[in-house]
Formats: sequence, C-alpha cells, structure tokens
Amino acid sequence: MAKIKNNSPVLFFYNNSKKWLAKISKNESFHTHIGILKHSDAIGKEYGSKLITNKDKYVYLLEPTMYDYVMRIQHGTQIVYPKDIGYIIARSGIGSGQKILEIGTGSGSLTSFVASVVKPRGHVYTFDVDEKFMKIAEKNIKKAGVSKYVTQHNLDLKTAKKMPLENMDVALIDLGDPWVVIPQVRQMLKGSGSIFAICPTMNQLEKLTMALVENEFTDIESTEHIIRNIEAREGKTRHSFQGIGHTTYLCFARKAFFGRETRKSTESAKTTKKTPSKTVKKPSAKTTKKTPSKTVKKPSAKTTKKSSKKSS
Amino acid sequence: MAKIKNNSPVLFFYNNSKKWLAKISKNESFHTHIGILKHSDAIGKEYGSKLITNKDKYVYLLEPTMYDYVMRIQHGTQIVYPKDIGYIIARSGIGSGQKILEIGTGSGSLTSFVASVVKPRGHVYTFDVDEKFMKIAEKNIKKAGVSKYVTQHNLDLKTAKKMPLENMDVALIDLGDPWVVIPQVRQMLKGSGSIFAICPTMNQLEKLTMALVENEFTDIESTEHIIRNIEAREGKTRHSFQGIGHTTYLCFARKAFFGRETRKSTESAKTTKKTPSKTVKKPSAKTTKKTPSKTVKKPSAKTTKKSSKKSS
Amino acid sequence: MAKIKNNSPVLFFYNNSKKWLAKISKNESFHTHIGILKHSDAIGKEYGSKLITNKDKYVYLLEPTMYDYVMRIQHGTQIVYPKDIGYIIARSGIGSGQKILEIGTGSGSLTSFVASVVKPRGHVYTFDVDEKFMKIAEKNIKKAGVSKYVTQHNLDLKTAKKMPLENMDVALIDLGDPWVVIPQVRQMLKGSGSIFAICPTMNQLEKLTMALVENEFTDIESTEHIIRNIEAREGKTRHSFQGIGHTTYLCFARKAFFGRETRKSTESAKTTKKTPSKTVKKPSAKTTKKTPSKTVKKPSAKTTKKSSKKSS
Amino acid sequence: MAKIKNNSPVLFFYNNSKKWLAKISKNESFHTHIGILKHSDAIGKEYGSKLITNKDKYVYLLEPTMYDYVMRIQHGTQIVYPKDIGYIIARSGIGSGQKILEIGTGSGSLTSFVASVVKPRGHVYTFDVDEKFMKIAEKNIKKAGVSKYVTQHNLDLKTAKKMPLENMDVALIDLGDPWVVIPQVRQMLKGSGSIFAICPTMNQLEKLTMALVENEFTDIESTEHIIRNIEAREGKTRHSFQGIGHTTYLCFARKAFFGRETRKSTESAKTTKKTPSKTVKKPSAKTTKKTPSKTVKKPSAKTTKKSSKKSS
Repeated sequence: MAKIKNNSPVLFFYNNSKKWLAKISKNESFHTHIGILKHSDAIGKEYGSKLITNKDKYVYLLEPTMYDYVMRIQHGTQIVYPKDIGYIIARSGIGSGQKILEIGTGSGSLTSFVASVVKPRGHVYTFDVDEKFMKIAEKNIKKAGVSKYVTQHNLDLKTAKKMPLENMDVALIDLGDPWVVIPQVRQMLKGSGSIFAICPTMNQLEKLTMALVENEFTDIESTEHIIRNIEAREGKTRHSFQGIGHTTYLCFARKAFFGRETRKSTESAKTTKKTPSKTVKKPSAKTTKKTPSKTVKKPSAKTTKKSSKKSS
Repeated sequence: MAKIKNNSPVLFFYNNSKKWLAKISKNESFHTHIGILKHSDAIGKEYGSKLITNKDKYVYLLEPTMYDYVMRIQHGTQIVYPKDIGYIIARSGIGSGQKILEIGTGSGSLTSFVASVVKPRGHVYTFDVDEKFMKIAEKNIKKAGVSKYVTQHNLDLKTAKKMPLENMDVALIDLGDPWVVIPQVRQMLKGSGSIFAICPTMNQLEKLTMALVENEFTDIESTEHIIRNIEAREGKTRHSFQGIGHTTYLCFARKAFFGRETRKSTESAKTTKKTPSKTVKKPSAKTTKKTPSKTVKKPSAKTTKKSSKKSS
Repeated sequence: MAKIKNNSPVLFFYNNSKKWLAKISKNESFHTHIGILKHSDAIGKEYGSKLITNKDKYVYLLEPTMYDYVMRIQHGTQIVYPKDIGYIIARSGIGSGQKILEIGTGSGSLTSFVASVVKPRGHVYTFDVDEKFMKIAEKNIKKAGVSKYVTQHNLDLKTAKKMPLENMDVALIDLGDPWVVIPQVRQMLKGSGSIFAICPTMNQLEKLTMALVENEFTDIESTEHIIRNIEAREGKTRHSFQGIGHTTYLCFARKAFFGRETRKSTESAKTTKKTPSKTVKKPSAKTTKKTPSKTVKKPSAKTTKKSSKKSS
Repeated sequence: MAKIKNNSPVLFFYNNSKKWLAKISKNESFHTHIGILKHSDAIGKEYGSKLITNKDKYVYLLEPTMYDYVMRIQHGTQIVYPKDIGYIIARSGIGSGQKILEIGTGSGSLTSFVASVVKPRGHVYTFDVDEKFMKIAEKNIKKAGVSKYVTQHNLDLKTAKKMPLENMDVALIDLGDPWVVIPQVRQMLKGSGSIFAICPTMNQLEKLTMALVENEFTDIESTEHIIRNIEAREGKTRHSFQGIGHTTYLCFARKAFFGRETRKSTESAKTTKKTPSKTVKKPSAKTTKKTPSKTVKKPSAKTTKKSSKKSS
C-alpha cells in the first residue's frame, strides 16, 4: 500500500473539470474556490483517500496517471488528446521496447505518453526547432517522470544533411506541413515501420496522403476519432448535453518498397531481372519524376536515389 | 535492417480487408484469390518488400504489429477493437511496468495488447472460467509473442473466497455482468487504481455505474468511441461511404475511500492519525450506510451483506 | 421584391450566435453590444440589406424563416431542435395537407414548424395540460404566423374517456412517459399512420419500444441525429472545435394490425376464418393479457376491444 | 378509414430492408423470397393490415409516405437521403406555399419531397441537362404524386443568357461544381433567400464557401449529418452494430447585399432614401463574367465598390 509522502505526486480531484496536479511539498497549500488544500494533510494517507478543505468540501488524493499529466500539461502549445494518443498507440502497435521518432515535440504530451509505454528499453527521440517550446516540453516531460526515456533534439530535419537516426519503429509527426519531412522520415524508419501524423485539417490529410504515396508508403489510412460522454444514471441514461469538438484528424501509413519486388512464386530468380512486371508499379525513381504533384513538396532526389540503390 | 527468415512473422498485406498473418515456414504457401503466396519467396527480403504471386498480383511483406495480431485474432469470441483498446490505455494511463488484472480473457486481444505495453517488468493476470475460450486465448497470446507477460487463471472471482492478487494498477473487466465482481476487483486494486469495463449495452453502463458508486469509486466516466475513415484524395476528400458501427461503450473509474477522511485543514493532526489505514480495502457495511447517495438506488441488503461478509 | 415595412418581421443578423428577431415597430430600437439597432432604419429596405449601428457595426436584415422562429423561441421549456424536426418530417413524410396530432405542446417549436408544412389545408391538433406552457406556446405559434393552422387543447389524453380526434396522419409525442398514451394515440391514428416520440433518454426508448410492440406498431426505429459544423476555409477546412451535444433520441413507428390478417394468396376466404395461422401473432386482446409488461402501462381494455371489434 | 382499392399505392413491408412499393393492380403479383404477394389480396383491406404469402410469411400493407418514395426511388443516379432532406427543410425553413429553385434534378428524390411540402400553392422549378436522368426523375416525381407541383427545365443555367425565374424563396443545388452557378442562383433568389448545396466532398464545401462570400451571401454554414440507429430492447439497448456511412455534406447560406447599406442610426433619413431598390435583383450578367474566381479569395474592394455603384 503506497502512502503519500513529501514529494509524492498527487492529483487533488474534485471533479473532472476541477482538479489540481502537484508534487506534495509539506509547507504548501492551494487556495481554491472549494477552500484551502493543505499539502501536509495529504502526507501519510493512502492514495484514494479524501482530503477535506476548510470549507467542508473534499477532494480525493489520486495517484496521477499519464492521462492526468497529459491533461494538466502546461499548454504552451496544443496538446494531443488522449482519445487521439490512444489510437496512435493502438493502430501503430506501440509497445514496450520500441524506438520512436517524433517530429514536432510541441508541449511534450504525446512524447511523455509514448515514453511511458516504450520504457525502460525503448526510447523517444523528439525533434523541434523552437527553443521556447522545447523548454516547456522539457519541463512537462520531467514532471511526467519520463525524461530518462526521451532525447530532445533541436534540429530542423527539413534541411538536415544527414539523418541522425535509423531503424525507428514508429515515426510521429506533429507539424503544420508534415509532407515536407516524409523523405527524411522514410530514411529513419525501419522497413514496414509506421508513421502517424497529427493533421488538424482535411487539406493536410490530402497533401500528406499524396506525399505518402509518392514516397512509397502503404496501408495509408486517415481517420477521425470522436469521443462521446454518456451520463449513465438509473432510469435516465443518455449522452451528455455537452458535445466534444474536433481535435485533429490522424493519418497512418507503413513504409514499403514499391520497386523492390520479390518474384512470382513460380518463376526463377533469373527471369525476374529480365521481365519487369507490367501490373507492378515501376521502380521509384522514374515514377517520382513522372508524377510532379503540385501540392506536394518533392521528395529530395537523394531519397529517391537511395531507394533505388537499395533495390538494386 | 531486419531480413525475413524462416520462422519470422509476416503480414502478407494486399489491402486492409485482404491480409494474411503467418509465421514463415519455408515449405508452405497460401492459396488466395490473388494467387499463390509462397513463403520461401519472402525469405531474405527486408520487411516492406513486395512479393508477387503467380497471378501477377502483389502483397507487401509487413512486420506484424500488435494491431495486426489483434485484428487477425482467431474470433472464438469477440475481440476488443483497437479504437477501444487505445482509449483504455490512454485513459487509465497504462504504461510499461504496471500490473494489470483482467477479468474475462475472451479471445485474448486486449490481454495481448496490454501485455505488449506493460512488459518486460509489468504483467497481466487474466481470469476466465471457460476452458475452451482459455485455450483459444492462450494460442492468440502466444502468437502475439507475449505469453511470458501473461498469467491465465481459471477461477471464478465471483465465488472465490480469497482474492489471489493485490495492489493491481489497473483492472479490466469484460463480462456480461461486470457489476457482480466490483467488490472483488476493489480488493485487488491499489488505492486510486483504475478500472475499465467493456459494456456493449447502455443497461450495463447504468448498472455498473450504480455498483461503482456503491463500492466507493470516483472519477466515473462512461464513453463511446467512434472512428470514422476519411478518404483523402486530391480534390475529392471526404468521409468513407462505409460506416463503422457500434462495438462497445466503455466505463472507467478510480478506487477511492468515501469514508476515509483526512481532516479539515484547520483541525488537528491527531484526529487524522486515528483513522487506521489497515482497514482500507474494506468497503465495510458501515461506510455504505454513511453514503446515502440520493440518485442511486439502494443496493439491496443482500449485496451489501455479501460485501461485508467477504471483507470480514 | 419585398420591402421591409412597419410590422414586418425581421431577423437582425450579426452572426449565428448574435441575432435578434423582431416585428418592426417604427419607434423602437434595440440596444446591443454592437450598438443601437433602430427599427425605423430598416423600413423601406429590401430583405438582405445591411443596417449599420451607431458603433459602425452592421447587421443584415433577414426575412425570418421557420428555423429562425424555432431557434429564437421563448424557452419556457425545451425546444425541439431543427436537426431533429427535420428528421421527423423526412422520416414520417409530413407534407402539405396532413392532419397532425401532437401530445405535449411544449414551447410550440415543433408545432409551429409542422404547421408551416401542413398548411393551408392541413392542421396541427396539439394537447397539453400545463396552462402556463400553453400560453407561452400560444405566443410562439402566433409569432411564427401559423395560429390559423393550430388548435391547442387543454386535455389529459391519459385519462380522457373519449378520443377527440380520429384518422390522424402522424402523431408527435413529447412527454416524459410517452408509453402511457400509446393506446390513445393508436385510436386517433389512421391505419399505417406514423408516430414519432421525442425521447431524451435511452430508458425512454426502451420502454416506448416495448409499448409500441404491445400496441401493434411496426417499422419501429430508434435513431439519434448528430449535426457537426464544418469550417470550410481555403486550405484549412476542418470540423468545428465546438462540439454539439446530445439533444434527444427519436422513436418512430407505424400503426399496423397484428391480428388483422388477409389470407394467404392461395387459400380461399373461407379457410381463412377457420385456420388461424400459427406463425402470426394472435389477435390483440389475448396477447395483451398474456404479456404483462412490467414497465409498460397496460393499454386500456377499451382500446384492445375496439381493435378486435374492427377486425371481426 | 381508407381501404385499399385497385390503383392504390401500397408499401408491402416485410422489414426495413425488404419492402416493395407498388400501385395495386388486381391481376398482378410479386414473387419474392418470402413467397408470392398477390395484389388482389390487398384490395378491400385497411392500410396497416397484414397480407400473408403462400409461404406463410406476412407483410404489412402500408400507405406509402414521401419517405418511402424517396427510399424506393429508381436509382438512376444517387438519391438525397432523408436525414439530409430533413435538415435542408428545417434549416432553410421550407414550408407550404414557397417557390423553390432546384439545379440538378438528379433522380428527383429531393424534388419530390420538397414538392410535397410546398404544395398546393408553392412550386418546385427544377433544372437539369441530362435527358436520360430527366426522364427517370419525371417518372419518380410522377410516382410520388407531385408532378403537378414540379416543372422540369432542360436548361444549362451556367451558360443561360437570361435567368428564367426570379424571387425564389430557396435554391437547392446538386451539381459537382455548385460554385459555377452561384451568380445565376443569386439573380433568381429573393433578398435574404436561402441556398442549400449538396456537397459530397470537403473540397466542394471549400470552393463553394469562397464563391458564396464573393457573391455576397451571409449566414454561411457547412454541416454534416450523422444518423445512428439504436436497437432499443428490454435490458439490452445499444447502438446498432451496423454503421451508417457518409452521404454528403451540406452547405447553407442566405443572400445579402454587402454593399447596400442602410445608414447609421445617427444619420439622416434622406441618405437612406437615395438608395433605389429597383436595381436590386441584378448582380447582372457582368458580375458573373467578372468573377471567374477559381480559388475565389477576394471579397475584394472592387466587388464592394461595384455593388455600391449599382445601388446608387
């Protein structure tokens, strides 16, 4: 049974919209509309216990979960919401031990949650270019207790000459223009590795999808996730009158090799080299040149070359 | 770069509705409507590569993720869908290292996914009473490669005299009548630990919510999760004409102690000390009486007695 | 071209959340946060024109539609929202010329809208028992300009001895316990006439559905209607961050005669009388007695008798 | 009590997915998987009665509503679904007596429903250019019994020199490129009249919205409408496992005059009188030509000036 001590993290929970996240500090206290919450009163209690304020209201002393950290994060920038984080994890199969690339650290909400899943042997490598946000994220990641499993990089991958990582299991992108980094992300992903991009607008989904096709990704899927609260009460169960609005759409895909063919089961390896299958999309370099998609930034020539080299 | 070898797991991916999950076995082959998929042709390729069939169609050779295992599971019973698994993980903050209690193993889909998150130091303890389903689940868990992190129990917790576990971080319930095991689950959960129940009907949500209040849970939240596919295509982006139907509602809550109060900030520390914390886990009859929840129908005398008996 | 005159109705439209509905009265003016709106300034303008306030803001002078009346109604009670009104009309096929029964006038929002559709030869007969609400509704119906097509009755149909109407095309019910009036409604509906009930909770849907089955209704359908706003803007199109919450569920059905059989095509009329088809539910009176649904108020014996008489 | 006669329309209702709409013709019969439905057996019955087939199954003989006509329409082209028709009527306040312009008759589903609402004094003027579809629509409109209230025009409004109508209450557009006819629609609409466009893609919403702003429409609103079936059953109520997919988005707006200002309340009435309202309805052919806005963007100074010129 875990007792609350000085320095223990506690979520003072009044209700879902009134809650306070803090590290217990024996001389501190919060002044809230429901009265004073004295930290020292929490010390020695078991998580789940009540703490009564001087106004005779009470809160529960909950052990914060990663959900609580994400929802209470300092909003220097937008957070990724649990409903979306959940699907990202479930769809790309993020699990303990994986190496995750993240482009656009933002407030560190997704970073922290994912780190709590991949630890202790996995790691999150996260990139941003805004010093101010990076500091906010650093704080948030530290509060969430996962700093050890996160490395923050200040590097613009769009212009970087050499990719600093390789063989990543999953790449998460939270940029306004996610399509510009797809060639770079591709280089850092392992074969059949997953990509997930946070796309608040339909236009982003559209542009990104085109870039993903052009960069040889498969299993491309765009989704949106709606969570609806239900008020379950005896004889009066119904959905909540409060609606929950749009947060973001999500775009998923997996790295494939369009031009890297293994031959038909019935043919010899020799034949393979000679007869390019008509029904199969042509090796990448060519295709890329032929499809000058206007709205999608061109995958750098380099990337293309690299792919062709690999497949030769 | 990981190459596919004999015994490597591979998802032969044609499209999202045509895909085959297998362990490579060099003499095997699948006969499908798109032709023959010869396992030996996959050996030596990198994940993400193409494999061409004798009908000149092709699949991608993907490295299966936990999502693929869940979606391809042998449906001896219903699976829990990724959209719901994701929210369960995100809302209850399931992360690496946690101890998870699961009541109702079902097909093992939720079991497997959660195990892949809590491993290597965490563990899933899962209970069922149907031998047949337990065997199906065992197979599925093994296929997903997480047997080491899962213990399957054949025990009816509803009638069990002594609870076999304690201090669980999160409890997952997938039963037709989840409310009957709430007192037992409570005993096994740590203070402020989370509970999640799979409730396909509104009536289940309603009954369960009443049982949760009665058993001193807080932060009770019922939700439903809607995933909508979006077809993102140049100049023609819209939601999919194919709708995705209901799977289940979810009910979340956290274990609290309604009767265990720490005193008002203005009162002496002494009083606080008087409340012995050993009795903690017992939702004693007394407590129940003290919380005459107006909106909740009185728990029948029987149930209450049953609870007190068990805890005495 | 319609010019605004003294006494013309005008919607002063600033935006979707700031708008004022009024009848032009040449000496009047509104004081709003965007400045003074002087009625006399509107006189002589065409609908659609701008009116500038003394704060240099402007509103458009729109000709109010039934939507505007419904949305601006004096909320003495809840209104039925346009998204739900729309489906009620579309699903039950309400059109010009129909006779509509409404039980529970409420604020008169649904009453007014439906009257504007069925006029000039159709009519809405609406029942309520709350004098206060009836007066509010009367005002709202008058404002909406459809008083001529609405008759308000102060009568409790639950206890009424004789039904005041017959052969109604559609019945609309907005009561907390819609199931109690189903036998009465049935008497007033024409054969295969439609019923629609406003049911804010799932429990109401459930009880009502049972009552509908018991009272020989078919094509029973429960639905909910979600409207989502989309912010369509160049290059940044997405759903609105503002969610729209639950309003109500809707339950639809059509009056049938379970026991009134026309015989199999191949048999003679004689045989019909002799051999009651096993696969067909037994004539109503009996069935009703046999199915003492606990949660559903018993359809009065009278109703039952009447039905059987008709079928003999 | 209406009895079914020869030539009466009947919906033979087995369940929501098996139903047949026909005009009774005494010598006809349907051969269905539930047996033979002999028309003559229906004659003399009341609507709502049962008809038993030679396979001992039964259907109900329902009086078809406009919903039934819409859902059973001959799908030469896509129909507009009741959920969307309902909102179109509710949001634009379509009622008895109105004059409706429709561009893109399609299968005549929306046409027929709207005609059934605006009749007997209102009318629907519908335009199409595809002879084949026009004939299908003609049939469908006739079947629905509203031919008298509908005029079908074979005219391409995009290129028409003179608009054939004026002072329409509401305009409905169901074209792939609705933005191209906005100037024409504007000419035919009354001041503050409503427009509704069927837009299956987000890209259409985006382009149309820009065209609406440019053409001086206000109260612009894009929405989508989701209908979810609920299976209400004793103790097991839940949403349907069958999802309902995307049909279309809808775009609504009302005609305003951006440049036609009535003066600030504090200015003299004289100025106001100077604005002759005769020129009103003409955004003139010129405007149309000048607005070859592909991407629209500019509500621009020019447009504004032009409008003011016109009104001076």
